Amino acid sequence: MNVSTLPLSQEQLEEVLGRLNITDVDNATIRQIVAVSNMVEGLSGEPVIHLELGNPGLPACEVGVRAEIEALRKGIANTYPNISGMPELKAAAEAFLHSFMNVNIPARCIVPTVGSMQGCFATLMLMGQREPGKRGILFMDPGFPAQHNQAFVLGLEQVSMDIYAYRGAAMEAELERILSKGNISAMIYSTPNNPAWTNMTEQELEIIGRMATKYDVTVIEDHAYMGMDFRKRYGMPGVAPFIPTVARYTDNYILLLSASKIFSYAGQRVAVVAMSPAVADRKYDFFRDFYGVPSFLDAFTFGALYALSSGVTHSAQYALAAMFRAAVEGSLDFVNDCSEYGRRAAIAKDIFLRNGFNILYSHDGREPIGDGFFFTLAYGGMTGAELQKELMRHGISAISLKSTGSRQQGVRVCVPLLTDQVQFDRLEKRLDQFRANNPLKS
Amino acid sequence: MNVSTLPLSQEQLEEVLGRLNITDVDNATIRQIVAVSNMVEGLSGEPVIHLELGNPGLPACEVGVRAEIEALRKGIANTYPNISGMPELKAAAEAFLHSFMNVNIPARCIVPTVGSMQGCFATLMLMGQREPGKRGILFMDPGFPAQHNQAFVLGLEQVSMDIYAYRGAAMEAELERILSKGNISAMIYSTPNNPAWTNMTEQELEIIGRMATKYDVTVIEDHAYMGMDFRKRYGMPGVAPFIPTVARYTDNYILLLSASKIFSYAGQRVAVVAMSPAVADRKYDFFRDFYGVPSFLDAFTFGALYALSSGVTHSAQYALAAMFRAAVEGSLDFVNDCSEYGRRAAIAKDIFLRNGFNILYSHDGREPIGDGFFFTLAYGGMTGAELQKELMRHGISAISLKSTGSRQQGVRVCVPLLTDQVQFDRLEKRLDQFRANNPLKS
Repeated sequence: MNVSTLPLSQEQLEEVLGRLNITDVDNATIRQIVAVSNMVEGLSGEPVIHLELGNPGLPACEVGVRAEIEALRKGIANTYPNISGMPELKAAAEAFLHSFMNVNIPARCIVPTVGSMQGCFATLMLMGQREPGKRGILFMDPGFPAQHNQAFVLGLEQVSMDIYAYRGAAMEAELERILSKGNISAMIYSTPNNPAWTNMTEQELEIIGRMATKYDVTVIEDHAYMGMDFRKRYGMPGVAPFIPTVARYTDNYILLLSASKIFSYAGQRVAVVAMSPAVADRKYDFFRDFYGVPSFLDAFTFGALYALSSGVTHSAQYALAAMFRAAVEGSLDFVNDCSEYGRRAAIAKDIFLRNGFNILYSHDGREPIGDGFFFTLAYGGMTGAELQKELMRHGISAISLKSTGSRQQGVRVCVPLLTDQVQFDRLEKRLDQFRANNPLKS
Repeated sequence: MNVSTLPLSQEQLEEVLGRLNITDVDNATIRQIVAVSNMVEGLSGEPVIHLELGNPGLPACEVGVRAEIEALRKGIANTYPNISGMPELKAAAEAFLHSFMNVNIPARCIVPTVGSMQGCFATLMLMGQREPGKRGILFMDPGFPAQHNQAFVLGLEQVSMDIYAYRGAAMEAELERILSKGNISAMIYSTPNNPAWTNMTEQELEIIGRMATKYDVTVIEDHAYMGMDFRKRYGMPGVAPFIPTVARYTDNYILLLSASKIFSYAGQRVAVVAMSPAVADRKYDFFRDFYGVPSFLDAFTFGALYALSSGVTHSAQYALAAMFRAAVEGSLDFVNDCSEYGRRAAIAKDIFLRNGFNILYSHDGREPIGDGFFFTLAYGGMTGAELQKELMRHGISAISLKSTGSRQQGVRVCVPLLTDQVQFDRLEKRLDQFRANNPLKS
């Protein structure tokens, strides 16, 4: 095998992209980028560093695995799961939210879904239906491209604001401007943010909550990375600090909690949707006429979820219930278990910064962002697409920010697959080459 | 406890229905009917006989449970399943279809889904999009009410034909009449049929296939109860008789195979969608523009399934792969394992017939239908709703046929929960009362 086949030449990379029918990396899917990586590995004979993939990268939570095995042994595989969710899971989720977020959501308002993907799909679907003339979804971007895609598939009106220029007090006027038009049914964001790893500050959550109440907009708050803002010590049951949430500032909220990252349980596709009683019990004419049940909760469960999959894998519900319970009882420290991501991010960031990169979304208020699952990078004056291609040529795969709804020029980096020193050394070496081939003007 | 509290009085039953806001049992969901049963049990102090519920009623297939436990132990819970499905599962499904149906569908055209509910939802969604002006779905009713509901949620045009009067050669003219209008994109039926337990004959499959080809209509053939027509000995790998399918008569087909009933695996929500290569590889302008991928298979996988749940529970895919493999190898006789349903149906039918009931959908061609999971009943001149309520008053819960798209007056009976002689004796006693209270004119 050739010793120094990386970087590929521009021509080699363009040929790979051409063979995969990718005319514009900005619009390529992560799956297509993985295909590019595979071809680059084939051509160069060297492993690509995968910074594009959001696989957990930690072993699955043992408590969940054991509970799932025990449930299967008990013989639950033959029985349709309750479409509203297993009572034990609903109760455990209630206790979990109370212990770590200090919010009170009754078990009846918590429903399991096939990952937060299904939870978000069902939520967006109903949000587009609930009131005539209110079919808009405001994405507080950057965000998870798949959620944009869901709104697109559902035919909903999408409005996007890049939070980059509207952090802190500046958020209020921008939200006021957008929401006052009256066509927005729901707004959505993740905190910690995918891909920027920013966290909404208390000031921002207060503004979002107040605006949501004022304009009758439902806040969809995605806690995919719940508690992983390692700047504070979250995750001690019943003890402050509690995980920040808009639920403290409005009754118009729906929380998405997925087991995928929180418990490294992505394979089993299980999550819960937790909504305020005000959201759950609100009645709509459309739901009564269309689904035969007037309340949002009933329309969500018996209208949307029933049609989408008739419920969630039975054994996975046992797993999630056990993990929630163990966390509440203090025998499972899910935040600490995930802190390894912070360690990997700190090392990776340091390597990138030393090689001339800078963090794009860099602060929450006056505080620098924490180290976690993702961060965003810019390099000199390169566009996101240029940077993505130039990194790929050097054996580093990351995705351009454009697909996340960001207006900034840069890429997203995921750290979970940076599992050992070999990977870090390889990253260091390739970035050294990258910098030499792309000198910054000083 | 009162000894003879059943039957409830008409007034008592009407009060129960009123308390549950059910004005019309014809339009009640099965879940609402279960709630009625619970209240009847509370009032009477006696267990209701549940003939409304389609839970498997047999233990889950051990091969699946073991494979799933082993996969969990191996540590697959942390890894996102491949959205196209695990290669082992796809290959096992190919072999399964070949062994028992004698059809050749390459593994790449077989994709797992979160139950056939998700498979059908995704299929109907794309069927409503594939060609402008072709948004109609023809339901060959009676059928599974949930599938009608999916088409409704998706906003598709629904056309329904009750096969009752159009069996055999008569099917051709009726299909010709409906399909020649040109607005039908897909037609759907289950065989064996839920709720009538009829099976499409070879003559009928030939007609359906020919018409599907002629009018460019995709046949969605739901094999939820695959092989359970116990009049023939299906289920011997590689040996005739093979399970009848429209796949022998057209290239325009999509098969739905769910583990729920075939392997008594309803709890784990796993199924596969198997499409002909002609369907899979056909390219559409709409899919290219909307999903960014022109072929039906890619739009199904990366467009629909990705948005709906990002794949299927990882361990459940291992279970289904193992069950398919065991069946192909001959160590798992899934048809024989389900034949218990036939035994229960034969006893139950006999009890009903002796008490003056008659089977509504009674024949396939010249042959009486087989004994299996369901059958349909009429009684004198009662409407379906009257019969449902009168049975409920006597402690027997079944659903009116109206929600299944049937135009006949009667009810559907599911036998899986008739697990022992105590149940049959109870049924006999209550039907004796029922007949006494509802004398037939002779």
